[in-house]
Amino acid sequence: MSKNEKLKIVPLGGLGEVGKNMTAYEYGGDILIVDAGIMFPQNDMLGVDYIIPDFEYLLDKVSRVRGLVITHGHEDHIGAVRHVLEQIPVPVFGTPLTLGLIEGKLARNGFTDKADLRTLQAGEKVQIGKFSIETFHICHSIPDSIGLGITTGAGLVVHMSDFKFDQTPVDNWPTDYAKLAEFSQRGVDLLLSDSTNSERPGWTPSERVIGPAFDKVMAEAEGRVIVATFASLISRVQQVADSAVKANRKLAFAGTSMVENAKIARNLGYLVVPDATLVPIDQALKMDDSKVVIMCTGSQGEPSSIIGRLSTGSNRQFDVQAGDTIVLSSHPIPGNEEVISRAINRLLRFGAKVIYDAIAPVHVSGHAAQEEMKLLFNLVRPKHFLPIHGELRQLTHHAWLAEQMGILPENIVVVENGQVVELSGGKLKLGERIPGGYVFVDGESIGDIDHDVMKEREQLARNGIVIVDMSVDKVTGRLKHEPEIITRGFLTPDAAERLIPEIRKRVMKVVNTSGLETEKDISAAVKSYLYDQTKRRPMVFVTLSKG
Amino acid sequence: MSKNEKLKIVPLGGLGEVGKNMTAYEYGGDILIVDAGIMFPQNDMLGVDYIIPDFEYLLDKVSRVRGLVITHGHEDHIGAVRHVLEQIPVPVFGTPLTLGLIEGKLARNGFTDKADLRTLQAGEKVQIGKFSIETFHICHSIPDSIGLGITTGAGLVVHMSDFKFDQTPVDNWPTDYAKLAEFSQRGVDLLLSDSTNSERPGWTPSERVIGPAFDKVMAEAEGRVIVATFASLISRVQQVADSAVKANRKLAFAGTSMVENAKIARNLGYLVVPDATLVPIDQALKMDDSKVVIMCTGSQGEPSSIIGRLSTGSNRQFDVQAGDTIVLSSHPIPGNEEVISRAINRLLRFGAKVIYDAIAPVHVSGHAAQEEMKLLFNLVRPKHFLPIHGELRQLTHHAWLAEQMGILPENIVVVENGQVVELSGGKLKLGERIPGGYVFVDGESIGDIDHDVMKEREQLARNGIVIVDMSVDKVTGRLKHEPEIITRGFLTPDAAERLIPEIRKRVMKVVNTSGLETEKDISAAVKSYLYDQTKRRPMVFVTLSKG
Repeated sequence: MSKNEKLKIVPLGGLGEVGKNMTAYEYGGDILIVDAGIMFPQNDMLGVDYIIPDFEYLLDKVSRVRGLVITHGHEDHIGAVRHVLEQIPVPVFGTPLTLGLIEGKLARNGFTDKADLRTLQAGEKVQIGKFSIETFHICHSIPDSIGLGITTGAGLVVHMSDFKFDQTPVDNWPTDYAKLAEFSQRGVDLLLSDSTNSERPGWTPSERVIGPAFDKVMAEAEGRVIVATFASLISRVQQVADSAVKANRKLAFAGTSMVENAKIARNLGYLVVPDATLVPIDQALKMDDSKVVIMCTGSQGEPSSIIGRLSTGSNRQFDVQAGDTIVLSSHPIPGNEEVISRAINRLLRFGAKVIYDAIAPVHVSGHAAQEEMKLLFNLVRPKHFLPIHGELRQLTHHAWLAEQMGILPENIVVVENGQVVELSGGKLKLGERIPGGYVFVDGESIGDIDHDVMKEREQLARNGIVIVDMSVDKVTGRLKHEPEIITRGFLTPDAAERLIPEIRKRVMKVVNTSGLETEKDISAAVKSYLYDQTKRRPMVFVTLSKG
Repeated sequence: MSKNEKLKIVPLGGLGEVGKNMTAYEYGGDILIVDAGIMFPQNDMLGVDYIIPDFEYLLDKVSRVRGLVITHGHEDHIGAVRHVLEQIPVPVFGTPLTLGLIEGKLARNGFTDKADLRTLQAGEKVQIGKFSIETFHICHSIPDSIGLGITTGAGLVVHMSDFKFDQTPVDNWPTDYAKLAEFSQRGVDLLLSDSTNSERPGWTPSERVIGPAFDKVMAEAEGRVIVATFASLISRVQQVADSAVKANRKLAFAGTSMVENAKIARNLGYLVVPDATLVPIDQALKMDDSKVVIMCTGSQGEPSSIIGRLSTGSNRQFDVQAGDTIVLSSHPIPGNEEVISRAINRLLRFGAKVIYDAIAPVHVSGHAAQEEMKLLFNLVRPKHFLPIHGELRQLTHHAWLAEQMGILPENIVVVENGQVVELSGGKLKLGERIPGGYVFVDGESIGDIDHDVMKEREQLARNGIVIVDMSVDKVTGRLKHEPEIITRGFLTPDAAERLIPEIRKRVMKVVNTSGLETEKDISAAVKSYLYDQTKRRPMVFVTLSKG
């Protein structure tokens, strides 16, 4: 091949994290999508359930999209599959575990029939439109993850999604180094790779190192052990199961997503737990506390998760009790620190022992640290480099590492979502700019709220609201009765009570001197009085009925 | 002394952090307050400026309060002095730098005349009412910090506020180990001590280790160096100044609090910068970029700080430019991670180089880690232990460390704010429970917003509001005109437009079938329709005028 044809790389999804949840490749008229995940809202995204990539760019090109390849089964890579398929009905390719988890998710949303899921084994090759794809196994905190070698007329691109170089993975299946080396022999024109931990020196410890920590917890706990992690962290579930077997405790899963994911992974052979160890949760709750391990969600302290509800005493099936040992087996996602800390404090107040990654090695990252990134550069020896999966700070740092590893600065491109990159004629350059943001999902509606709505919510929340409701006599132009004042989120009832009579007076004064068409004047008078009294600016609404 | 009289310890202030911002001691009818600081609001405390301790407990005992002792000059220990003095006019005791910083703050609020500030030198003894207080120097990230030995008829209490055992502090003034050892000889009945870093193993590095990192930054930077830290981190200011001198750069301070604190510290001799190195900011901005260091606030990414404004291109005096090296010399306060990350990304987008503690040693903690805590137990050998300055998780861990160090479990008490602890007859036990919360300060008003108001704000923010405004004819009972619908923070205008005609129809149907007294029915109909359409629950307000 001449390598003169143009490959477009379109990083589409992620909340500041480039290409994290979705990347599209465009070549010779065909389009390939890699991953379709969701992100969780940041603290100031008020009332948002979750976020999906803005893939509007693809919507007038639907007929050219040939397939969606999913690299692994975590939410931030599979969570938006349904939303994509609703608008872009294409085959979905993935390994058995990944597709199993997707199928489970789709089924919960009544979507299974419409999805064309095509199983790939790691190491398999597949032609999707004009893209020749070679998959290869990589280690991550979920089994059956893959990276992609994508060959087109523009050359060979290696797409490394979330990965770590775990030499002793829980499933004994190390990364396919041979394939990476083979790519290197062939000549890699472009590497895209996970930047999550580019600020972290050294090597990320193997998933296996946390086994002994769990063994210790289970041996020392006198009561129940309750372990919280993400429902899709199948490797972690395996380790907890292994420790439970050693400690001669029974294992129960609590919560729909945990129960279902474990079932899927077990059915497919990715999670190995003896039948004798597994018990249903209601049975576990009746057993001797010292013989029980419960796995559930909520390691991020989410209020609606089992740990969240346990911490506030509002869980339906069971409560925390003194003597319980609760393990939060995850690292706080930036922004969640406060919520997690509050959950820990509340659980301690119930008399539970709480173990988390700050005080015991009950979690390791699933992402490569700097030394692994360097090894990847040496294994793949790419000509060009495009850091993905990170915010600008992590990408910048990853780019700097690439330079240290001998990649020419002019061959490294750092972009943000929506900035198209082109590989053509053996050169990497910037292409067009397209909408590359994200879409808020709130309730049933997708995209019905935007940053302006978010700003209004922030305004509402910052100082609350004051509603002034009046009726004016059409004939006399006078108020029919005293204005009614409603406040929410502004002041305590006591404090509001002090101000309301004076608000009424001010309103009446404006009406009586300026007459009818005075919504604006009334609002201004109320705002100025309230600011003067409280140095705060609630949103003021005046409703004026004339009759 | 018999040690049979009762000493009450009343941990009052802190946002989950016990006694962090204020602790009161009560003995023989006299009351001593230690520290009076503020806390910054958490992410879900919408619209709150800052938080002060709830010291209502003291308000009916004002005549018995003998003094306020401040351990050091950080905001979380001095920020509420003004609020305390407004209600409890007592002498304030502190070291020269601490009082200098307090004086500056009070002056900015027009409060100086009313304050009775009494200077103590570290090591000095002072009798405050029935409390015999021996102060002693401790290291922290601000010079002139003190700990307190408090002797009453109940025995000797050692109160360690924020501290670290820095063997090579920037001001060459190590902790007064001799005094701690002397206390130990005498017999310490109770130790209260800083739990902030109780989850961190090892030793906290000396403040001095960051000097070389700053030297490197200044040597390598081709343009301006802009260093952000807290305005009260005087030791950090000293180190940046020292590096500036070595790098032959001029140093300018930007921002009121930074300029004023540096001036106060310099006047009192706690900050040593040659006259030739200091230049005013407007002069620095005209100089060769490679010859300039600017120190400012905003290391936590606060939107209103200089770094916050630089990151959004809204700073008045100067802008970020390509070639600038920006150093964020602090560690993210839990909850601020998102905001800081966004600021870093934005600064990178301007072409600046950004250095922060994740990628270079430009910050160390000011608080003791586990090995230092252990050393303190060995130095002081207290009989009883009350961990302070931490949330329940840190206190619990500190208590566990104390047990490891041989303090009897029954002699350790872990409490939260508002739980009085009593030392009497050589025993430590729980006393009464008093209000020990905190008070929100928002604009001019203190305590006019509470958790209920906060909940309303959250409700407003979660899904926005819908106001339905109607006029009904008194005689016919019919609507005079179509209802007006106002929404904020609910949907984009486009999406709302789709729903509004149907909302109107539903409202009219209710009015026409159920008649006048129907605010509740209307609200219910609108809510149910909106939930059905959007799966969201905005707050709905119906204003109904009859005439």
